[in-house]
Amino acid sequence: MKKIEENKKLCSEWFELLRNRICQEIQGLEEGKSKFIKKKWLRDPNGSNRMGGGEMSVLRGNTFEKAGVNISTVFGKISKNLKGKIPGTEHSNKFWASGISVVIHPFSPKIPAVHMNTRYIITKESWFGGGMDITPTNLKSKESLKLAKFFHRNLEKICEEYRKGSYKKYKKWCDDYFYLPHRDEPRGLGGIFYDYLNSKNWENDFNFTRKVGKTFIDSYKSIVVDSKKSKWNEEDKKLQFHRRSRYTEFNLLHDRGTKFGLQTKGNIDAILMSLPPSTGW
Amino acid sequence: MKKIEENKKLCSEWFELLRNRICQEIQGLEEGKSKFIKKKWLRDPNGSNRMGGGEMSVLRGNTFEKAGVNISTVFGKISKNLKGKIPGTEHSNKFWASGISVVIHPFSPKIPAVHMNTRYIITKESWFGGGMDITPTNLKSKESLKLAKFFHRNLEKICEEYRKGSYKKYKKWCDDYFYLPHRDEPRGLGGIFYDYLNSKNWENDFNFTRKVGKTFIDSYKSIVVDSKKSKWNEEDKKLQFHRRSRYTEFNLLHDRGTKFGLQTKGNIDAILMSLPPSTGW
Repeated sequence: MKKIEENKKLCSEWFELLRNRICQEIQGLEEGKSKFIKKKWLRDPNGSNRMGGGEMSVLRGNTFEKAGVNISTVFGKISKNLKGKIPGTEHSNKFWASGISVVIHPFSPKIPAVHMNTRYIITKESWFGGGMDITPTNLKSKESLKLAKFFHRNLEKICEEYRKGSYKKYKKWCDDYFYLPHRDEPRGLGGIFYDYLNSKNWENDFNFTRKVGKTFIDSYKSIVVDSKKSKWNEEDKKLQFHRRSRYTEFNLLHDRGTKFGLQTKGNIDAILMSLPPSTGW
Repeated sequence: MKKIEENKKLCSEWFELLRNRICQEIQGLEEGKSKFIKKKWLRDPNGSNRMGGGEMSVLRGNTFEKAGVNISTVFGKISKNLKGKIPGTEHSNKFWASGISVVIHPFSPKIPAVHMNTRYIITKESWFGGGMDITPTNLKSKESLKLAKFFHRNLEKICEEYRKGSYKKYKKWCDDYFYLPHRDEPRGLGGIFYDYLNSKNWENDFNFTRKVGKTFIDSYKSIVVDSKKSKWNEEDKKLQFHRRSRYTEFNLLHDRGTKFGLQTKGNIDAILMSLPPSTGW
């Protein structure tokens, strides 16, 4: 098998494996009371696999009001309006992309919401991208800052193992990205974000991608176990709705992923899976 | 006083008068239990009136979970990125704009949500714009269709009085505008929408604008009195949340008013006043 085909296979298989692990852990935290419901989708309206597709898994439970895990492997030709705007598409419109995307909105306002995404893209060039960020209800409370510190420490570890200085860079990238300019507010307490990652050492980059996924579920599991015990009141719930309204504004007004998905006529339910189960303005 | 200055004054005074009338009627339907809370804002961050401003009125009540009425009169120079994109700004960046905007989200899923907006804009050219549309929870029920029919009949009357054939045109404009392309769904059951209205008979155009405002509150009041009595159940409430999620998607992803407001650094709370008080995905 050609190296590139082997890499594609390794990536899409990894994303599926990680999806299974995340769904299993999240279901475990639900203590078996709620299950993920899976739904496959294909890009081709005629139902063939000639353009790829994906699988969406959604759980609506007691601990997690809404947890969504998407995997997809899509390929074909990028649309005219995107040609030249994505690296390696100046002279060819062929692309291949595989990835996983997770958004979790817990019921308790004391458990932070979380997002994680990793992907591998091939055009005439190829690169990894991804990241994760944490959104506690209260962005200033001692409890939230403590959880965020733990989250960041784990991220710092894998980033610095991958490449010295990368944590600071990816953290800033995350802060710059998950930001609501119209409110002059951050979306949450950050994390890491990176794109166009290609160090010319594919194995190393792929290994980092896998570590991002594993660190995500390990860290978040600890955070949930820890924050699940905390009591909350009506004020906390109100603030959670407020935080979620900002989350919605970010995802619909600013998120590149949402824009890209809608422009490329992706699966609407999968693209908007990130939106909170309940909110208000 | 120069004719143009007189027209500006007539318009901004009318919008204020209409605002008072709408707030009074809505408060009346609340049976005095909830009141509008008013909040003035200025465009100039230094707090002067050199760029204009507005007043936002919001009521959170029993019949109306959220009712917002904005008036504003703003002026100055349009930003570089808008120059030439708005009629009459090819050779000058001066503008003046005054308007009223109303969005009402009732608590009962049996009472339709409604939106109305009218405005007068002056650049090197000048024109009126506006419209209104109705969004019942259930877009297909007999009750909803009956209420929408009444709403449309009143609109047809004033449009046809203003100019033969305009109802059909403005109705189509509304259907085309309040549409979610990513869902291939209408936002609601329509109404009218018009822009760049200048028949060279200012008094006639202004008179039409006033009729739009008056017809709006008269029609909606009847609709509320009529639909308020209807019993509803959990299924209706669920569908209302669903409808509101689509409303939010439209306003954040597609609405020109939202985009224009954010691009021109308008008042964020006023721009996003239209978003529903409670919803979910």
